[in-house]
Amino acid sequence: MSLSFQILKTVGKSRRGKLTTAHGIVNTPAFMPVGTCGTVKAMMPESVEKTGAEIILGNTYHLMLRPGADLVAEMGGLHKFMNWKRPILTDSGGFQVMSLSGLRQISEQGVSFRSHVDGKKFFLGPEESMDIQYKLDSNITMAFDECTPYPSTEKKAMLSMQRSMRWAKRSKEAFIDRPGYGIFGIQQGNVFKNLREESAAALKEIGFDGYAIGGLAIGEGQEKMFEVLDYAPDMLPASKPRYLMGVGKPDDIVGAVLRGVDMFDCVMPTRSGRTSQAFTKYGPINIRNARHREDPRPIEEGCDCPLCTNYSRAYIHHLQKCKEVLAVMLLSWHNIRYYERLMQGLREAIENDRLDDFVQEFYFNQSKGDIEPL
Amino acid sequence: MSLSFQILKTVGKSRRGKLTTAHGIVNTPAFMPVGTCGTVKAMMPESVEKTGAEIILGNTYHLMLRPGADLVAEMGGLHKFMNWKRPILTDSGGFQVMSLSGLRQISEQGVSFRSHVDGKKFFLGPEESMDIQYKLDSNITMAFDECTPYPSTEKKAMLSMQRSMRWAKRSKEAFIDRPGYGIFGIQQGNVFKNLREESAAALKEIGFDGYAIGGLAIGEGQEKMFEVLDYAPDMLPASKPRYLMGVGKPDDIVGAVLRGVDMFDCVMPTRSGRTSQAFTKYGPINIRNARHREDPRPIEEGCDCPLCTNYSRAYIHHLQKCKEVLAVMLLSWHNIRYYERLMQGLREAIENDRLDDFVQEFYFNQSKGDIEPL
Repeated sequence: MSLSFQILKTVGKSRRGKLTTAHGIVNTPAFMPVGTCGTVKAMMPESVEKTGAEIILGNTYHLMLRPGADLVAEMGGLHKFMNWKRPILTDSGGFQVMSLSGLRQISEQGVSFRSHVDGKKFFLGPEESMDIQYKLDSNITMAFDECTPYPSTEKKAMLSMQRSMRWAKRSKEAFIDRPGYGIFGIQQGNVFKNLREESAAALKEIGFDGYAIGGLAIGEGQEKMFEVLDYAPDMLPASKPRYLMGVGKPDDIVGAVLRGVDMFDCVMPTRSGRTSQAFTKYGPINIRNARHREDPRPIEEGCDCPLCTNYSRAYIHHLQKCKEVLAVMLLSWHNIRYYERLMQGLREAIENDRLDDFVQEFYFNQSKGDIEPL
Repeated sequence: MSLSFQILKTVGKSRRGKLTTAHGIVNTPAFMPVGTCGTVKAMMPESVEKTGAEIILGNTYHLMLRPGADLVAEMGGLHKFMNWKRPILTDSGGFQVMSLSGLRQISEQGVSFRSHVDGKKFFLGPEESMDIQYKLDSNITMAFDECTPYPSTEKKAMLSMQRSMRWAKRSKEAFIDRPGYGIFGIQQGNVFKNLREESAAALKEIGFDGYAIGGLAIGEGQEKMFEVLDYAPDMLPASKPRYLMGVGKPDDIVGAVLRGVDMFDCVMPTRSGRTSQAFTKYGPINIRNARHREDPRPIEEGCDCPLCTNYSRAYIHHLQKCKEVLAVMLLSWHNIRYYERLMQGLREAIENDRLDDFVQEFYFNQSKGDIEPL
């Protein structure tokens, strides 16, 4: 085991932890901004660092297509290539092969598919995924898996999960261990408790540096997701980090931390930045709305990001009307900073034994809605 | 006269000057990045400042349409609105009314037109232009003028120039003088020396804080432009800054500085950033070109911008292939920094009496072409 994880404090099921990698420490609960193609969209890496993000996620599927893992390796790995000095986690490519590529053919060996960019043929299985993530120099490699769609019959979910567990074993065997680098297994089983149990048992039998909960946030809704999270994290080793993949909205994250999850990733802060949405203490707002046209106030009073420190709502409204790139740059920064402040708040609340208060306050504020128009 | 201009040194016709405004000093020869809609495209204002730019240009035409001068005034002026603390020069709107708007009707009073954004009707004349630039809180207001198209008959160029001179007088009369703010007149006359002379005389009679050379870089080509610049700057008062509007390519600027011009603005560095072009010591390159795909070297060895310091050509090539915003952000930064380094080089060369050497070296390097492929 080559990543060390230390739990500093526990409150209920929630944990305050510290994950140590070759590229630095990640304080948990942690949110990872997504850098799909070797860049967190519309952000300089220095700016990502300034938001407080200690780790980002890279996408194996996108990077294997463009520019290719060999090229990234020649350039000294993904950290050097994209000028991000802190830890990187890469997904296995499994999820995106299923959702983005064309003409997929899945077998026990892996998945044949055509690139969504240029139609070129590729093959991705556990061994290929490990090789690519190794070449990218990812600190946290994810085991290759298949994400069962929602809804699925129990039979389908079982067969898919069982194959993912066989792939997890091959992933672990193909993973090259080295200090400060590790591999996470991914629990599947859809919304079926017995399958989640079987999956967790298989993963523990193989043994990983951390455990992800996969196959959620794919359309089942928050209620169903929380139902699964009421038991799924408990099935995974308490001493290892637990990572809920692709989640989520701020209240998804708060609910999942309460249920014992340590790590998150989501495109939401950057994607929302591109659709003029800003997350705030009082819920999300859309800066396109005419009510902001003449509003001299910041998007969120008290937020320390460059957008809220230096610009009015009127200015951002104006920028997005003119389709200026700066609107996307500033909103992406603000939104990632919002997420990182949320995580910081959760970490401090656990440390200071005031998680209940923090969560109550969070829900109360979120339900208030935006400040009154002037 | 409310702007002070000091000439520190002269070499041949070239001048090393210092223009003092309410928002700080501009060292000349100076290049002004263009911030059309209240933002230098794809740049944080902090980053624009880091390039060494001491002044930027804002566009009256664009800002009057969106968000409107009154709104900018309510928000505390353009500096505060866009978070740019250094000096701002605004054009008069005349040029863009002619090139962008629809259904123009020009009269002695000014120009009626329809917005290119939403077809709304507007009127812009000298008094309106002064009022807008006052509301924007522009440090350097430009007199309202008409840019005669190229080619034009001498008759047409004369009538147009003479009207521009009447407009210049009305502009000066409508301009509200205050410390650290000033107004520049604009010489017209197309490529006709006698008209340039007549225009210069009219402007000097009115009296301005600075003098622009308008009506060039509109398709006449560098040779013709330099022919005009061989005499036009000399017609303007030696003690005041001379500004060549809308110029230009790096070698246009070098040639114009040799002919006695002090200030420049151009969209080229930011626009080129959006089309994957990078300016370098050895001439422009296009990073889209396949030869950069696996090139680990910076775009320009020795350039101190974030792009050249932290990233390979291969990375920028990859970003632009994936249409990532960061490509535009980094290329815009590099290109503005390139321009600002060029201006810094010109200023130092004048100071140190080595302008001839500098210019020779510049042309020699530019003609060399890009470094050899690996």
